[in-house]
Parts: sequence; C-alpha cells; structure tokens
Amino acid sequence: MMMHMTAREFAMKDRVRIYDTDAQGVVHYAGYYRFFTDAFEQFSRTRLGSDLPMANSRIWFVVVESSARYYRPARLGDTLMTHVRAKLSGRKAVRFSFRIMRKRELICDGSIVQVAIDSRRWKAVEVPRATALKIARLGGGLTKRAHAPTS
Amino acid sequence: MMMHMTAREFAMKDRVRIYDTDAQGVVHYAGYYRFFTDAFEQFSRTRLGSDLPMANSRIWFVVVESSARYYRPARLGDTLMTHVRAKLSGRKAVRFSFRIMRKRELICDGSIVQVAIDSRRWKAVEVPRATALKIARLGGGLTKRAHAPTS
Amino acid sequence: MMMHMTAREFAMKDRVRIYDTDAQGVVHYAGYYRFFTDAFEQFSRTRLGSDLPMANSRIWFVVVESSARYYRPARLGDTLMTHVRAKLSGRKAVRFSFRIMRKRELICDGSIVQVAIDSRRWKAVEVPRATALKIARLGGGLTKRAHAPTS
Amino acid sequence: MMMHMTAREFAMKDRVRIYDTDAQGVVHYAGYYRFFTDAFEQFSRTRLGSDLPMANSRIWFVVVESSARYYRPARLGDTLMTHVRAKLSGRKAVRFSFRIMRKRELICDGSIVQVAIDSRRWKAVEVPRATALKIARLGGGLTKRAHAPTS
Repeated sequence: MMMHMTAREFAMKDRVRIYDTDAQGVVHYAGYYRFFTDAFEQFSRTRLGSDLPMANSRIWFVVVESSARYYRPARLGDTLMTHVRAKLSGRKAVRFSFRIMRKRELICDGSIVQVAIDSRRWKAVEVPRATALKIARLGGGLTKRAHAPTS
Repeated sequence: MMMHMTAREFAMKDRVRIYDTDAQGVVHYAGYYRFFTDAFEQFSRTRLGSDLPMANSRIWFVVVESSARYYRPARLGDTLMTHVRAKLSGRKAVRFSFRIMRKRELICDGSIVQVAIDSRRWKAVEVPRATALKIARLGGGLTKRAHAPTS
Repeated sequence: MMMHMTAREFAMKDRVRIYDTDAQGVVHYAGYYRFFTDAFEQFSRTRLGSDLPMANSRIWFVVVESSARYYRPARLGDTLMTHVRAKLSGRKAVRFSFRIMRKRELICDGSIVQVAIDSRRWKAVEVPRATALKIARLGGGLTKRAHAPTS
Repeated sequence: MMMHMTAREFAMKDRVRIYDTDAQGVVHYAGYYRFFTDAFEQFSRTRLGSDLPMANSRIWFVVVESSARYYRPARLGDTLMTHVRAKLSGRKAVRFSFRIMRKRELICDGSIVQVAIDSRRWKAVEVPRATALKIARLGGGLTKRAHAPTS
C-alpha cells in the first residue's frame, strides 16, 4: 500500500472501496479525506518517525484546516496514488498537501493543516524539534502561517 | 432537527454522535462534513424545493470544492447549530457556506461548491432556473466563480 | 427526528443521506448501523435518562455484539422509521433490538448488545440500578445472556 | 497490506486508523465492518478472480446479513490481521467469515452473507459458476442457507 520514491516525494497507493462511493456512483466528496488521512499517517510514520496525530501522550496534532478540490470522478476499484508533501507553517503547525492521481489524471488535490497541542491543556505548542527538523530536511520550508485553535 | 429562521437564514440543530468522534475525544475533522451535508440537503429540500444532490434523474449536483476551518473542539453530546447560506457561483454552480456554532461559540466554518451536471454525459450545465431564482431571492447574489469539473 | 409512541414503543424518523449510500445506489450495509446508533442514543436519552454510550466518566457502555439482516434496499431520500426495544441481558448488559421500516415495508432488523464497564479498569460491571429499573418498567424483561468482553 | 498463506487461508494486514476510533479511545463497533469489507474485497479479487461486490454490470453481490462479536478493544495504531473464509450458502449466496487478530489475541469475529442478484431486476440469481467452483476448491463447502432479499 506504500511506495517510496525520492527523498522528497512520498505516495501511497490504494483502491477505491465500496464504502468510499455514494449513490452517484463515484467517490463521495468527503471520502477523499480518508485518502488524505491515511497518506499523512503513513508519511508521518515512515518519514518523520512520528505517530501523528497522537505523537505521544502529551503532544497531539489536531486539524485546524482542511480543503479539497475535485477534478474528475473516481469509481469503485480505481487505483489511486496519493502524493504527500509536508511544510512547517509557523513553529506550531504543519501543512500537508495532497495530490490524488489515477495514472496521469489529477483526480483531487487539497491540504490539511495540523497544529501541535499540549493534550492536557489543549493549547498550541511548538512542533517537536526532531519532527520539525525532519520536515525541513525533506524540503518542507516555511509556508504561510496557519491560524491557531482557540483553547 | 431543523429550525426555520428569517427568510434568509437557515440553521439545522443536531447533536454530536459517538461515530462523529475519534480517539482524541473530539469530533474528527472530516466528521464536520456530515453536518455540512445534512445542512445543505435540508436547506435544499425546504428552501429550494429541490432534492440536491440528485435533483432529478438528469440533473445532479456534484461537489467540486470543500473546505473547513476548525476553531474549537466539539465533544460527544454537544448540541450544534449549523447555519447555511447559498450563493450562485457563475451560472453552473452554487456555493454553500456554513458556520457551526455551540451556543455563542464558533466551532467550525467552511463551504462546499456544487456544480450542476448532466448525469448521463457528466458535463457541467446551468443550475435549473427555478433553483437559481430561489437562491437569488434568498439573498444569494453572485459570488466568485468556482472551477468546473473536467469530464 | 423523534416520535414518541406508547410507553413501550419508541421510533426515530430519519432520511437516507447521500453518505449512507454506495455505488450500488442503495444504503451500504454498514450504513444501517448509523440508524441503530442514533436510535439507541435517542432512546437512552429520552427514555432512560442516561447518556449512553458514556453514561458518566466512570460507567461506559461498550458494544459486544452487533447484527443486522437486510430485506429490501433503501435509497437516497427515503424516510425510514427505526423502532427500538431494550432488554436487560443478565445484570451487566442491555440488548437493543431494531426494526427499520419504510412505511409498511420491513427494510432491516437487527440488534446491538452493550455491556456496562468501569471505564478505568475496562471491566464489566452491573448496569446502573436506575437504568435497569427503567428498562424493566418499559417492558424489557430478561433475555438470553450476552457474552462479556475480555479485559 | 495483504498476506497470502496456504491455499485455504487468507489474511489481510492493516492498521487501526484515527477515523476507525471513537471517543471511547477504541475502534467504534461499526468500524470493524470496514475491515470485513476490505478483507472480502481483497479475498475476492485475489482468490476468486472476481470484483465483488459488483462482479460485472449484470451480476452484483448484495449483503443480506452482517454480524460481529467484539472480544477486546483495539486502539489507534494497532496492527490487525483479518482472516477470511468463504462458503457457499445455497446456490445464490456466499458467507464470508472473519476473525480479526492482534497477534495471538482475538479482537473480533463475525460474518457477512452476500447474495448474487441480477442488478437490473434486483432479484437473487445463482452465484456465477466460476466463482462457485473456486469457493468450493478453497474448501468452502455448503453451509446453512441464507435468507434471500425481497425484491
């Protein structure tokens, strides 16, 4: 279910499942967030060495923004590649960007912004240094700052 | 589960369900799209007289953009009000905007853009005139144009 | 979304949503468990005065069995009534039985068995006395004993 | 994500995802049906050479029964093995049985019964001969007959 590419690229291979689809015969719009979620979890585990979204009992990552644009419908049984990139967004957040391809066709793109929090106080904190360094090394420079969650 | 307000306002009342939540103890980020979906379906049925997303066997509405920002976590059993507004976005699309409130606290906002298509050719077509007129009368003037799906 | 009937009967009214359906054009088999879940939560709150599945911070209810049989397909926009009955199953469990009707047609029936646990030790405990009494008064005599979860 | 074992055994490896879990910190009871569904789809594709649940445009497989028993809670990040067996159930249905293991611990077991239908008339038909033969060869003799869906 996973493909390692060059150091800076990461893509996850998966199939469209029956529960991803709806009565229009195509993947339900919110169903693509399953692909985003699976892809960032695999990326985090294999590239960042961190079990986002619950890095440990103290530091969690919570989603503060999500967005997707849908270009072409995907259908049951289609094989999709979800490409992932990560960028630091200020010192407390990481933006994961996704492109979902069916061979050479762009099906969907979008992003998720995750903020590191102290899980006991539910307050934004800095992304752990080891994780931030790995993101920077993978080419994820700073991007525009995300909004912080209100405690 | 529904509240009618003034002509231009529409809000749906619902509770956070156990399946909306995840192991962080709060609503999963993608779970808010269930509230968006339920709210625009109720709005469409009661205010537009149209069963979006499958208005009839010929005209369907398909989502081409979705986005959400998350401000505060919502928990199991919380009562949430999802406020909806609709605007035409060009002649072929409708943008639904949402604000999810827990009493006076903003929990989440976002939007979904739906494009009318001919379901047999999967090609964008104009929003049916009766639906477009109702949206315009409810105060939904034109907004910036959405991108169209590629067939 | 709720209908109160005689003391012993309870039914919840809801519509089939686009996300309940799959590419076969009908409700996905696992989608009916959303109706079961919503129905037992409303029943518990309004008839038992208890916020199952997390009655309080100490006593939780966890599902140890689920089952459903599907008789006729339900489609987008169908209005379904989910009828609920509760029975004690030994001293530590409650069996909720469901019948989902579309007017006079039986669409689906099934059940969920929930066991009361001490959430800190994850061990089965007795159903709180007040809840057990209300179930007994609603006509839910004892039924065959459910299996207990292994800690 | 897949493991081939001896001819008669099939198991799928997967991890518990954040969206499988709920506020009790464990996999939501209905979430295990995702594992069942993924497992029977992989089994069907790789062992039966058939893309259940929509074998072709004419013959579909629809679920007429589902059930699960839950023995131990599974948590975010757990690696689970879903073991699958298939048996013919009369001439028109297939029963898939599942056992979900976390190493040597039984987490959940259950089954799904699928009936072959003519998708245009939504009437039960015989399981295609090639599929039935493969199931028989894999050791899936006849089991008790499932109920048929009402058209």
